[in-house]
Amino acid sequence: MPESVRILGIDPGSRFTGYAVIDVFGADVNVVAYGVLKLPQKKPVSERLKQLDMLLRQLGEEHCPGEVVVEEAFVAVNARSALVLGQVRGVAIVAAGASCPVFEYSARAVKKAVVGYGQADKGQVVQMVKTLLHLPEAPPQDAAEALALVLCHMYSRRFAARLEGAR
Amino acid sequence: MPESVRILGIDPGSRFTGYAVIDVFGADVNVVAYGVLKLPQKKPVSERLKQLDMLLRQLGEEHCPGEVVVEEAFVAVNARSALVLGQVRGVAIVAAGASCPVFEYSARAVKKAVVGYGQADKGQVVQMVKTLLHLPEAPPQDAAEALALVLCHMYSRRFAARLEGAR
Repeated sequence: MPESVRILGIDPGSRFTGYAVIDVFGADVNVVAYGVLKLPQKKPVSERLKQLDMLLRQLGEEHCPGEVVVEEAFVAVNARSALVLGQVRGVAIVAAGASCPVFEYSARAVKKAVVGYGQADKGQVVQMVKTLLHLPEAPPQDAAEALALVLCHMYSRRFAARLEGAR
Repeated sequence: MPESVRILGIDPGSRFTGYAVIDVFGADVNVVAYGVLKLPQKKPVSERLKQLDMLLRQLGEEHCPGEVVVEEAFVAVNARSALVLGQVRGVAIVAAGASCPVFEYSARAVKKAVVGYGQADKGQVVQMVKTLLHLPEAPPQDAAEALALVLCHMYSRRFAARLEGAR
């Protein structure tokens, strides 16, 4: 596992998809970009998915990540929303992870890594992400989820590197 | 709506994805290709989805369809399988329909168009597709669903053309 890497995190949602890009150099971390992609709700599903694909491929071309992290799908309350979320998730994995490995973490694991416990609410995630990454202001919620995701992956990489070092 | 068109049909499934390519020239139809894409079940989801994306893009490059048809998602019995199906479906729509319009029909509409009633079983679909397209032998089931899908779209196009002509 290389010490320096650019990580792209994606939090796919049926309306808003959050993203975050960070550079990790050993113990240092630099926030490169974060934001929210908004899908037009009035277009047919196929158009919305194609647009998300295009936006995520643009993000990938712009930032050339070495690793991609996507939130593991929670199982939605009903089959209809699970299907819609699944569609967005499938497109996100393939478009963002086209040319690099894709990692997944559950929402619970992400919250535990960033806030300290798995039941943290969204507001706490926003505040912790802002603090940990020294952001000038609180990021939008969907972007904060993506930032939490890349942080979680960074911690997991560090832990793996330490285990390797201890061998 | 042009009289001649190449139609690619995709029946996305979590394990097997059927496809079919036909050429329509006015009242004539020519079967170009059909088959089943099988996804390796032992690889991580992201690898499976990337592989499906690659296979479908290859299909698109090989056959250059003018229109793509995908089966409208039925709502699965549970949220877990809806999510899995949704992921495959999202990838299928974006990969196969990358450079042309995407149409959707429900399984019920497809069966009604091809067999004559919406509750037809899979075996009846296989037999009707074989008969209607003069295939030398019964196609594999997932391919038959994709063939039924392109037939349904062809009938729908003809109906639209007749309506246009009647004006």
